[in-house]
Amino acid sequence: MRPILVFQTDFTYKEGAVCAMYGVVKSVDRQLEIIDGTHEIPQYDTWSASYRMYQTMKFWPKGTIFVSVVDPGVGTPRKASVAKTADGYYVVTPDNGSLTHLKKYVGITEIREIDETVNRLRGKNTEGVGIFHGRDLFAYCAAKLASGLIDFEGVGPVYPVEEIIEHTTFEPELANQIVNGILEIDDPNFGNVWTNIPLDLFTRAGFEYGDYLDVTIKHDQEEVFNKRLLFQYSFGFADKGSPMIYNNELMRISLAVNQGSFSKNYKISTGDKWTVHFEKKEV
Amino acid sequence: MRPILVFQTDFTYKEGAVCAMYGVVKSVDRQLEIIDGTHEIPQYDTWSASYRMYQTMKFWPKGTIFVSVVDPGVGTPRKASVAKTADGYYVVTPDNGSLTHLKKYVGITEIREIDETVNRLRGKNTEGVGIFHGRDLFAYCAAKLASGLIDFEGVGPVYPVEEIIEHTTFEPELANQIVNGILEIDDPNFGNVWTNIPLDLFTRAGFEYGDYLDVTIKHDQEEVFNKRLLFQYSFGFADKGSPMIYNNELMRISLAVNQGSFSKNYKISTGDKWTVHFEKKEV
Amino acid sequence: MRPILVFQTDFTYKEGAVCAMYGVVKSVDRQLEIIDGTHEIPQYDTWSASYRMYQTMKFWPKGTIFVSVVDPGVGTPRKASVAKTADGYYVVTPDNGSLTHLKKYVGITEIREIDETVNRLRGKNTEGVGIFHGRDLFAYCAAKLASGLIDFEGVGPVYPVEEIIEHTTFEPELANQIVNGILEIDDPNFGNVWTNIPLDLFTRAGFEYGDYLDVTIKHDQEEVFNKRLLFQYSFGFADKGSPMIYNNELMRISLAVNQGSFSKNYKISTGDKWTVHFEKKEV
Repeated sequence: MRPILVFQTDFTYKEGAVCAMYGVVKSVDRQLEIIDGTHEIPQYDTWSASYRMYQTMKFWPKGTIFVSVVDPGVGTPRKASVAKTADGYYVVTPDNGSLTHLKKYVGITEIREIDETVNRLRGKNTEGVGIFHGRDLFAYCAAKLASGLIDFEGVGPVYPVEEIIEHTTFEPELANQIVNGILEIDDPNFGNVWTNIPLDLFTRAGFEYGDYLDVTIKHDQEEVFNKRLLFQYSFGFADKGSPMIYNNELMRISLAVNQGSFSKNYKISTGDKWTVHFEKKEV
Repeated sequence: MRPILVFQTDFTYKEGAVCAMYGVVKSVDRQLEIIDGTHEIPQYDTWSASYRMYQTMKFWPKGTIFVSVVDPGVGTPRKASVAKTADGYYVVTPDNGSLTHLKKYVGITEIREIDETVNRLRGKNTEGVGIFHGRDLFAYCAAKLASGLIDFEGVGPVYPVEEIIEHTTFEPELANQIVNGILEIDDPNFGNVWTNIPLDLFTRAGFEYGDYLDVTIKHDQEEVFNKRLLFQYSFGFADKGSPMIYNNELMRISLAVNQGSFSKNYKISTGDKWTVHFEKKEV
Repeated sequence: MRPILVFQTDFTYKEGAVCAMYGVVKSVDRQLEIIDGTHEIPQYDTWSASYRMYQTMKFWPKGTIFVSVVDPGVGTPRKASVAKTADGYYVVTPDNGSLTHLKKYVGITEIREIDETVNRLRGKNTEGVGIFHGRDLFAYCAAKLASGLIDFEGVGPVYPVEEIIEHTTFEPELANQIVNGILEIDDPNFGNVWTNIPLDLFTRAGFEYGDYLDVTIKHDQEEVFNKRLLFQYSFGFADKGSPMIYNNELMRISLAVNQGSFSKNYKISTGDKWTVHFEKKEV
């Protein structure tokens, strides 16, 4: 049975890009199964592209091929690649930071640069197009790989895993019963904000569900939020409209407003300039 | 042939939640067919979740399994359930009002609470996650049911249909040649507003396509709209930009602006505080 | 193997319309494969519907059936049709301008009006519904055609290809080393603006990647943009935030801001009132 192709891009469905890309896949092999990961990665945001694969990949059957096209450098000399993860998945992607989390937390065992001379779509008035590798290169090459027309070696020449482009990541810390981290990504739908702090660090700090913790958020060293918040197992334990701390679906500490938006209510964004501190003060 | 899984949630595709959920399904059984009902149910809106299933379910093959995850009470003691409808479909959903219309207008013949000890995803660092039953419970249990790994009895213990949580519904009425109802939901895309009044009640009132009817809308008893509008078979019979009355796809009386938005133009929303009255006055 | 059904509409996923439509397809034939082209065509915009099919269709396997439902005249006497293209695809669509580009640039070899007496959904409380041909007529008829329950002749009576409703199209021109065209559509996601000028006309004008060209945009004869811009192979050759000229995925000259939005930054829209002129002035 052919592996599934899961696509994620920043294309949206507002015009025909996804449709053209999927047509290319089906023209290579009608049997291939295509599933939308998402086409709403924030534009040009290779950090989010990286994070969303890390967040979702392990739930898919081994062998699944992710095609990730967030590609601000399309048509420039950045590499177009296929990576193999330590846990048995493939990723077809520009090598532009989109592999950061998989490389660091899962492991990339091998990476190959797509050989355009054999694995690029020909004809259909595509020769000379420099701006749509999602259609002409990534989807086409992924379809060939998934269908068995080429094997992993057939993608193109291997290059050192050490050369993979990575974003800087930040590690949380526990010191003097204070847990420090950054706000590393959000859930833009519900307005929840996710830290890089694993639940485990809270446990080691002695924080338990039901505790009230002092939360300080700084942007570029400047304090922008300071409140005592309930730490609980799920949203519904807080009053409707109240901010709270919870353990998210990746087992990382996060901030929410029950049936509301933490990021909107408190004008909180994410990135390495957004630091967060949790402390249990005796009242 | 395995039943189709139709998903509806309020997750959107803005982050990785849908992708993780679908990965779980495919990891249970590669053969399962997943179709997006919609992931744009208004947030926490269990009334809409209920209505959309009522609106769409009967068009699917018998046996189709709907997975509906609009779940403001996730992680709290609300029940996670699988219901069987009188016309032969299954619904995997939190029991939180999402079954209102199916129970009232179609019938629920049996409902079972999902037994988390056997029908919850294990491993993959999900133990201890309290906020994503869409992935860990509903998708996983639905996939087991669709694949035949469990039968309906295998979901968990049955409980009385009478205990199903329901929203209050409102019945329209015809009195003195005036038809009264509420604006019960909208089409947020085209800005059409749907009443709870069946076409049949208009027929009994003697209203016919081509008639001009006096339409009064009140919010909390206060009149917010009063106009004489054309009642017609479809939008195109009204002038472009003109408001009109039509029979919607559920055979219910609705309000539209031809190639415009009724709800935006007249600042009309929906819910039981929005009442509507139709009358044919002699001119 | 049954042909694929590719759907494009202006319905969005905000309510249950797409779900009901797809249920109809699956109820005709469980084997049918449905793929979202897009459900985000701008509302009532039959020009965009036409363009997006022209943009994407050729990438699909021959025989693929497109179902395009952008239908401001639903329920009025406009024709509901199935067209066969010169390159071997089918289009199920209202005949309302949605076939413009395919007719002009690809060719329609035959068109038939859907016979509602045999190819319209019956039962399920749909009789009397005048506003949802996407569900009751187009999806149902397309599913019958794709499944082999009817052949192309079974759609309904043929009518002359010359009667197909068309939008006016505009041809670009090269005169005195100035290339003139219109802004005919945009990419609403990235804010790129696409002209009707093929790369070939630039080549004939002597314009080459790396050149700086004077670009003038007029709206209704009034100049709204005038800048000297870099013409390059892809976005990344311009500075981040800088406007530039590029060759788009259809081999047509387009305008972008690298990692920004040309249409937003310069308040540029599209349509036949938006003309554009390119000239290489010696400095």
